[in-house]
Amino acid sequence: MKFSQMLTKRFKDTPADCQIASHIFMIRGGYMKNVGNGIYSLFPITKRITSKIEAIMREEMNRIDGQEVLFPVAMPANIWKESGRFDAIGSELVRFKDRGGNDMVLGMTHEEAAVQLARETADSYTQFPFMIYQIQTKFRDEPRARGGLIRVREFTMKDAYSFHTSKEDLEQYYQKCHKAYERIFARCGVPEVISVKSDSGMMGGKVAHEFMLCTPVGEDSLVVCSDCDFRANMETADCIYDETAKGAAEELTKVLTPGMKTIEDVCSFLGKDKSDSIKAVVYRLETDDSVCVVFIRGDIEVNETKLRNFLKSEVYPGEELDKEGIVAGFIGPKGLPEKVRTVYDISLKTRQSYVCGANEENYHYTGLNIERDLGEVQFVDVGKATEGGICPVCGSKTLKLTRGIEVGNIFQLGDRYTSSMGMKYLDKDGSLKTPIMGCYGIGVGRLAASICEARHDDYGPIWPITIAPWQVQICALRSDDEQVKAFADKLYEELQDAGIEVLYDDRQVSAGFMFSDADLTGIPVRIVVSPKGLKAGTVEVSKRDKSYLEKFEPDKVKQNVIELVRTMVAELNNI
Amino acid sequence: MKFSQMLTKRFKDTPADCQIASHIFMIRGGYMKNVGNGIYSLFPITKRITSKIEAIMREEMNRIDGQEVLFPVAMPANIWKESGRFDAIGSELVRFKDRGGNDMVLGMTHEEAAVQLARETADSYTQFPFMIYQIQTKFRDEPRARGGLIRVREFTMKDAYSFHTSKEDLEQYYQKCHKAYERIFARCGVPEVISVKSDSGMMGGKVAHEFMLCTPVGEDSLVVCSDCDFRANMETADCIYDETAKGAAEELTKVLTPGMKTIEDVCSFLGKDKSDSIKAVVYRLETDDSVCVVFIRGDIEVNETKLRNFLKSEVYPGEELDKEGIVAGFIGPKGLPEKVRTVYDISLKTRQSYVCGANEENYHYTGLNIERDLGEVQFVDVGKATEGGICPVCGSKTLKLTRGIEVGNIFQLGDRYTSSMGMKYLDKDGSLKTPIMGCYGIGVGRLAASICEARHDDYGPIWPITIAPWQVQICALRSDDEQVKAFADKLYEELQDAGIEVLYDDRQVSAGFMFSDADLTGIPVRIVVSPKGLKAGTVEVSKRDKSYLEKFEPDKVKQNVIELVRTMVAELNNI
Repeated sequence: MKFSQMLTKRFKDTPADCQIASHIFMIRGGYMKNVGNGIYSLFPITKRITSKIEAIMREEMNRIDGQEVLFPVAMPANIWKESGRFDAIGSELVRFKDRGGNDMVLGMTHEEAAVQLARETADSYTQFPFMIYQIQTKFRDEPRARGGLIRVREFTMKDAYSFHTSKEDLEQYYQKCHKAYERIFARCGVPEVISVKSDSGMMGGKVAHEFMLCTPVGEDSLVVCSDCDFRANMETADCIYDETAKGAAEELTKVLTPGMKTIEDVCSFLGKDKSDSIKAVVYRLETDDSVCVVFIRGDIEVNETKLRNFLKSEVYPGEELDKEGIVAGFIGPKGLPEKVRTVYDISLKTRQSYVCGANEENYHYTGLNIERDLGEVQFVDVGKATEGGICPVCGSKTLKLTRGIEVGNIFQLGDRYTSSMGMKYLDKDGSLKTPIMGCYGIGVGRLAASICEARHDDYGPIWPITIAPWQVQICALRSDDEQVKAFADKLYEELQDAGIEVLYDDRQVSAGFMFSDADLTGIPVRIVVSPKGLKAGTVEVSKRDKSYLEKFEPDKVKQNVIELVRTMVAELNNI
Repeated sequence: MKFSQMLTKRFKDTPADCQIASHIFMIRGGYMKNVGNGIYSLFPITKRITSKIEAIMREEMNRIDGQEVLFPVAMPANIWKESGRFDAIGSELVRFKDRGGNDMVLGMTHEEAAVQLARETADSYTQFPFMIYQIQTKFRDEPRARGGLIRVREFTMKDAYSFHTSKEDLEQYYQKCHKAYERIFARCGVPEVISVKSDSGMMGGKVAHEFMLCTPVGEDSLVVCSDCDFRANMETADCIYDETAKGAAEELTKVLTPGMKTIEDVCSFLGKDKSDSIKAVVYRLETDDSVCVVFIRGDIEVNETKLRNFLKSEVYPGEELDKEGIVAGFIGPKGLPEKVRTVYDISLKTRQSYVCGANEENYHYTGLNIERDLGEVQFVDVGKATEGGICPVCGSKTLKLTRGIEVGNIFQLGDRYTSSMGMKYLDKDGSLKTPIMGCYGIGVGRLAASICEARHDDYGPIWPITIAPWQVQICALRSDDEQVKAFADKLYEELQDAGIEVLYDDRQVSAGFMFSDADLTGIPVRIVVSPKGLKAGTVEVSKRDKSYLEKFEPDKVKQNVIELVRTMVAELNNI
């Protein structure tokens, strides 16, 4: 492709609404154009990147016996009603009526479509296991689209669905797919992507992993052990607390704490550490509108995902507590109205004696001993992991909190969809059984943007060669110089004939202008042809990441560039 | 791929709702599954076919300097409001509100998106011409989805948009794209596709062609000259009438024709030919609800597309005519209330004397002479071409009517979208100008089904090798036979190593069962490995279309099949 013919436009200034590097460079470099909130058209340069990512995904999915299919974007709602998700999912699921007045949805994921396709087709145990996948457009009406292609409403996704007759078989395939994902990310140039245990959310099922590219701009909080392999999403990370320093039991005493409604105020007034207090956090359950008070150690935060999973309900901050007989600011486990549901976090197993609210305006207790004063209590893990906390795997106090962008996820769905949608197969023994499923997703555009986030300098993206829009860029400085033009034209043709993808900047612009455009284009290998160089008998070849710069005699350029490209491609592909 | 592992299911019986061959075979052969009205999921076998068609399209679009982009499926309505189509298009355009209450549409075509992407990017004459294309999902809420993949509501389409600074440049590129389309259809194995002049309908613009695969099950009526190159869609075919036998003028006479309300009744009663009568057809205009009477020769039908274009309004059959002072069944040009709008078809220029209604219950005129009795009349071409009619190009009476499936279309849009959406570029002379556009579409699934329609026998599809799901099918009869299995396994590996795509039927099923499945799979080259054959020292190689059957010694099979496949592929690609 000649640069002069490419439909694109670059901008010198950073647009006002762009905060993260990938968004800035992909707007400044003319990679995409905003069509609406969280909706983009992709310019040719980006389509080339996403097509390459898709090709790598396809190869890796085929390698683990995946069969490519195509599900509809717009689906009749009936299959979503079968699975129960038509009613369960909120307004991120787009619903509309077709001309006949029928309920329709836009696919934001395709478990229902996968079961609908497979259920009358795979009806004998001999047909299992199998995996089907598609690369297709999805729409999710995100309330907070942001960060360019990182969080959009419409996106292209590779989604795969595997079907199995046993848990062991699913587990085995799940591991296989986990490895395929590692290969995909490594081949796309980001081998540092880690997988973390995650919450399966609206997908159903129990075991799930997210693949995370660690970066400070990531939306997800991760918990990683710096001593062992443990890594998890904050949402699901198990908490362990040191129970070896419980302290001594004290006498239960009611103390006047006038107007002190926060843990900080009370602890500082009483000269106690926050970890010696019980914090009360009030929620209201979506399912029955009832109130629930979570008691947790004063220095620990409530992990609402864990709480939600434990209560099996969406939760909202509790309000209008007077009606329930709750004294806001002075809530404690002793003396709380009995009808109020309570949850005790396991962090409360670590002390013999606590400061806590006395359920009376302006009063707290000191010396509360849970066993002595409250009797038997069920402890549940609903707390957030903390920096320096105990690793649930190796036991060291080595937990680190970090942030990451989720670039893929895999779920063991079990029979969540096959059972609700009535999929059955005839087993060896003649009985009808329900198969179980796994599902596996990667967003194409988000992966492209995340790679840009992880691979850029101050001037633009540094695309890994396997997904770069072109492998080589020829910058012809002074293309009006006859010798430069003749050499660059010939090199362009010869490299292309050798199967190398070349972007040829043939424009008559200044060197500075051309180089800054080349930085924004981010092509990994650059050839600079200039009148000065040719006069000196050299052509410059460099890598975009600045790790390589060589000058070759003009007739040695072609072969050296071909070898350089092949080595770079092989490095990423031969993992 | 091993047949035993493929997700698919075949059916012996023809489903009740399938009428045409492609629909029957693609359901019976497990190619797709209905998800809802006009919405299908594609099984792996079909995805392989459509991916190959897409690859051919991509190559041919790139060959004419197309740049692949990606537009959104779901778009904010504002760009459709800019072009005016948000209000102009009926319920086939899906509209919905997003969570923020904003109007959204599902793309059924992407002119608006193309202009939105290009308009601030290509702002100088130096950037023209260019063509961008995508291969993407579209949704059109068809009132009458039918025929499997022939007419669906959701479909994958290759749509291309070219931008130009002059009419000559557009015309030139249009021809180039016309040629690219011919190459696409030829490479997909249907070189017999013809292009016909067509109506541009809701797309705007004037010059348009449809690419038609002629088949009796086609939805479109075509007019084709058997003597010259003329071919057109019935909707736009110009009509020419013989004006050399006008007959003699007669006296205008009112005659009693009791209860005779049809042309047939009146002409037979008066002993006249239908071509000597004037038929009146009444319409109501959508724009202002007014009535319009079309007068046309008794033997010619009204072409409503032409009428619509002339009146610049949608038209519906006229009803409740009494109110307008119209006497249904006896309508004629003389004595009709003056306020009623009339249209005279050019077929009425062919006689001196006509039978026609007298606008009075039970009366007709004979001997009506238009010039003498009505004065000057504007004649318009709103008639349908007829079998044996006069060719507007060569003038012979050689028109034939036939039917075709529209498999592609190209339009010269002019400034229909660039002008309404305010796209401008800076011309050489420093002035701002509006570029003009062409657009070019092919539906992928419809093309696949159309090819099946054109290439099948009584037992299933005969896929052209360039788009076949696999190139070669190995049928291992008695795969439990050690020798058969060993030979077939080895051949399967060796052919794949040579880059041949092989479907290997390794199932232990009867020969009849296996062959009938192979017929439904439609793979162009078949290798039959049987115990009997191997004993006799032969392996059978045949073509699905029955034009070729050879027996080879086992160790000669591989090389012969490789050559056969290469020759077949080259035949279609080297056009």
